Amino acid sequence: MAIAVSVKKFLNNPEDVVKESLQGVGAAHADLVSIDLENKLVLRKDAPVSGKVALISGGGSGHEPLHGGFVGKGMLDAACAGDVFTSPVPDQMLAATKAVDGGAGVIHVVKNYTGDVMNFQLAAELAADEGIQVESVVTNDDVAVEDSTWTAGRRGVGVTVLLEKIAGAKAEAGGSLAEVTAIARKVNANGRSFGVALTSCATPASGTPTFDLGPDEMEFGVGIHGEPGRRREKLKSAAEIVEEMTDAIVTDLAPASGSNVLAFVNGLGGTPLIELYLIYNELTKQLAKHGLKATRSLVGNYITSLEMAGASITLLTLDDELTSLWDAPVHTPALRWGV
Amino acid sequence: MAIAVSVKKFLNNPEDVVKESLQGVGAAHADLVSIDLENKLVLRKDAPVSGKVALISGGGSGHEPLHGGFVGKGMLDAACAGDVFTSPVPDQMLAATKAVDGGAGVIHVVKNYTGDVMNFQLAAELAADEGIQVESVVTNDDVAVEDSTWTAGRRGVGVTVLLEKIAGAKAEAGGSLAEVTAIARKVNANGRSFGVALTSCATPASGTPTFDLGPDEMEFGVGIHGEPGRRREKLKSAAEIVEEMTDAIVTDLAPASGSNVLAFVNGLGGTPLIELYLIYNELTKQLAKHGLKATRSLVGNYITSLEMAGASITLLTLDDELTSLWDAPVHTPALRWGV
Repeated sequence: MAIAVSVKKFLNNPEDVVKESLQGVGAAHADLVSIDLENKLVLRKDAPVSGKVALISGGGSGHEPLHGGFVGKGMLDAACAGDVFTSPVPDQMLAATKAVDGGAGVIHVVKNYTGDVMNFQLAAELAADEGIQVESVVTNDDVAVEDSTWTAGRRGVGVTVLLEKIAGAKAEAGGSLAEVTAIARKVNANGRSFGVALTSCATPASGTPTFDLGPDEMEFGVGIHGEPGRRREKLKSAAEIVEEMTDAIVTDLAPASGSNVLAFVNGLGGTPLIELYLIYNELTKQLAKHGLKATRSLVGNYITSLEMAGASITLLTLDDELTSLWDAPVHTPALRWGV
Repeated sequence: MAIAVSVKKFLNNPEDVVKESLQGVGAAHADLVSIDLENKLVLRKDAPVSGKVALISGGGSGHEPLHGGFVGKGMLDAACAGDVFTSPVPDQMLAATKAVDGGAGVIHVVKNYTGDVMNFQLAAELAADEGIQVESVVTNDDVAVEDSTWTAGRRGVGVTVLLEKIAGAKAEAGGSLAEVTAIARKVNANGRSFGVALTSCATPASGTPTFDLGPDEMEFGVGIHGEPGRRREKLKSAAEIVEEMTDAIVTDLAPASGSNVLAFVNGLGGTPLIELYLIYNELTKQLAKHGLKATRSLVGNYITSLEMAGASITLLTLDDELTSLWDAPVHTPALRWGV
């Protein structure tokens, strides 16, 4: 089925969309976060938390709730917002690092995109010059392709959300910089993702589609900015799509049969929840086929690409430690439980 | 800005979308809900809860997470899923009523659409014949139009979500059938909504747009099935749109200056979160203009119209009782806090 519709947006001046949206986040969640509008930062309200390892992340805007929606108790201490689909700059990251450092060190959670990696690296060096201990953890969980438009190596996608939750819990529990870093790296090592786009999206500034996709086509293995995946092909049934996505993930992750996994079905923004749950239903059949058991789940729009229709699947193999940290209380605009 | 893209969906057989999606809900939230696939019901896992007033709701599918995503502790005991944009039938509602009755009576939460109202009324009569006490509460909070395509009087929209949460908390706290019914009616009386569509949507079965909207047009006052609103006009700035929406709500609700409100910005499915928060930012300016204070907020996709781009605003005037019931613990697939 393919029906032409128009992409239209709630906007004032396209240049102001990130700042105006951040102001909305600050107003809606004034109990949880504060906004540094000049540096385009979402900060944990009680930052810096003395003696706690702090976690910051950031990246281009347009992927909401990532990352600003994950700032709060048990997750991130700060998020740096770039322009839409554009890396934040080192000055923002340095300002965030200084704002949240509680004396126990700061972890930079960096999705593997060349701009983000370079800028976070420079920010880490600047922070070190000011006497702040910084560790960087890079996520690169997307098994679709090795190198792509803006990335050397694999892209960082859905695992980033799970890492921010799990490492955030370890920091909240008093973990040292080395311990929290180790947990974060373990999450990245245990997780793999795969995404599919059914439509493109349009940035507010450009007003034109990020890429072209025919009325009966899908991009199999798409990146969160519309980067090409493995191939472009005719739209298939949900069952066929999910089977291929799961096979790609499981082949690469190679979990032991009988493993427990966290099964994460993520919407890219324009796909309704009724379809995301239909995908989850297909995923449960595929997991059974591979001898895997989803002991935890997450279904919804958590790492998006504006209004792109599409979805990604992330699987994270769980042990008792990761499960317990996943279950720990969290209180952010987009993820909340136990409090 | 208007860019033609295609509506494409993750589907197997379009006839099976509701059942397959319900199965996904059941699998992803097996700790919270169970699924009666034959009757297309989402049931609270521990239903019936002895001695507790039970709440059920239901309606056409395609508005997820409404209502199945709101089943669980502190909210609904069951949700009846109709086909997409089609009322469930009395047999489903009767089955739900019988499944959740814990001896203290059952409340039917009914959005004001003619089919839903008729079918819930028949189900209530059938349940009464079987000795179950039933009260019906109809939501009709949409101030856009008086009568419309499928509704006599005002349509029930965003207030339904708030009512299910607040009345659900009252039931969880041990309120009697009369007390919970009174709270539910108070929420409907204290709340008003207004919705705007920037694009149409397409049902899985039809594969064609529910209505036509030009590439530079918006529907001002749209219903959640694409019913016409007050007028169709050129797309305006977010500031202008939100000002008109808020004025329409406040004029009708007529809250005392200085009132506390719950400010709810709801996405219709295809509008990204970055825009919903931009709308929330505009809303805060409008509330200040009207002398109102948002002491609680909710921003996200809670009552949707498949992949429609658009948003609604709901304002609910709060007193200490409603605030305290809103804050009470809730544990459902789509709303969770305090547990």
